[in-house]
Amino acid sequence: MAVAVSRVRGLLFDVFGTVVDWRTGVASQVEAQMAQWDLEIDAEAFADAWRARYQPSMEPIRAGKRAYVRLDVLHRENLDWVLDAFGLGAALDEAQRDIITGVWERLPPWPDCQTGLAHLKAHHILAPCSNGSIGLMARLARFGGLSWDAILGADLARNYKPRPEVYQVSVEHLGLEPDEVIMVAAHNDDLAAAQKLGLGTAFVCRPREYGPRQSTDLEPTGDWDLVVEDLSELARRLV
Amino acid sequence: MAVAVSRVRGLLFDVFGTVVDWRTGVASQVEAQMAQWDLEIDAEAFADAWRARYQPSMEPIRAGKRAYVRLDVLHRENLDWVLDAFGLGAALDEAQRDIITGVWERLPPWPDCQTGLAHLKAHHILAPCSNGSIGLMARLARFGGLSWDAILGADLARNYKPRPEVYQVSVEHLGLEPDEVIMVAAHNDDLAAAQKLGLGTAFVCRPREYGPRQSTDLEPTGDWDLVVEDLSELARRLV
Repeated sequence: MAVAVSRVRGLLFDVFGTVVDWRTGVASQVEAQMAQWDLEIDAEAFADAWRARYQPSMEPIRAGKRAYVRLDVLHRENLDWVLDAFGLGAALDEAQRDIITGVWERLPPWPDCQTGLAHLKAHHILAPCSNGSIGLMARLARFGGLSWDAILGADLARNYKPRPEVYQVSVEHLGLEPDEVIMVAAHNDDLAAAQKLGLGTAFVCRPREYGPRQSTDLEPTGDWDLVVEDLSELARRLV
Repeated sequence: MAVAVSRVRGLLFDVFGTVVDWRTGVASQVEAQMAQWDLEIDAEAFADAWRARYQPSMEPIRAGKRAYVRLDVLHRENLDWVLDAFGLGAALDEAQRDIITGVWERLPPWPDCQTGLAHLKAHHILAPCSNGSIGLMARLARFGGLSWDAILGADLARNYKPRPEVYQVSVEHLGLEPDEVIMVAAHNDDLAAAQKLGLGTAFVCRPREYGPRQSTDLEPTGDWDLVVEDLSELARRLV
């Protein structure tokens, strides 16, 4: 371990994919909502297409070419694009698009997360370090019964991971040093960015985040401090 | 009511005095800690003197004459001043001063708060809108068993109440409109600032915040939407 477990006092979490199953949550809700409006779509392809716009839409902000806007705004903009791509550009009005965007506030946690986080919270201070906004993270936590000590991440740094300031600002707001904090994520690039700044790293395997044909992040590709199957194992290893 | 209860979805809370009994918490811990170092003080007078520096120390930041620093930094600076005033300027080293400053992270909630907040949380999104830092608020919540959905307030606005941006930024981060949010406080000036911005207001009576001889905030002095004895009553009125 690059980071001494006995020194760790705080845990920062990636959320989309690491804590919540965005693909299942988005697909099931979009399908049900569209059906109410007599619209039929390939809901999983729709979820994948929407999420595929996620990284590119943050890029101009990371590059300093666009002022920071919250992920909620990007989700809503990206939805317009996906609706066009699915031939539904004329089918939904603004109010309906806002309703669809709201599905990101109601995503199911992976089965281990509620209990795993509760165990971890008894000994560590816990916060999301997500690209999601504070309001979005708060609603996701309410929906999924997740109990954070604070919500950190993109909204505080006014920039998006993997920009270093997002991790740095989050660590600072915990009132801790980088080596007192572990970044927990299912994504190797997220952990690589955190490790560069001196944080500890825990890789959680989420081989179905992108569905049955997932090809990325199936294995840890870096020298992470911990590699775990789920948050229950993380709690056993850290407590 | 200026604000329609049925429209309210979020509650913002003042914390020092409204949710936690800072005076009892500071005095009892300082007394116990000083005794371990064979130092005797009038602990309640010490707590009062320390808190008396609170508002003046934020004033240069509110006035734009000093860059924002967290309340933890001001607490620590103010401690130096109070120790000098109590003739203890030479008695404590830096590490001991840091230990004493940490008492602000362990303050008892008023007896109604744990249950009251739990009831309120079932129906509303809850966050502190305090001058305390995110880390300080998170540790206070862990100590007192308080469950917030997010931590908002001074650290997000990088300024101190009653500056309007502190309330505005907090409402924005909830993703709500001002009239969907009630500010809850035991201090009339806090509510006056929130009301000017269109937030609802709830006055909680805390007649012992400043001890048995309290002379301020014994009564509501504005036209507040709600006036309650404690957070249990607030929950009954809002749910």
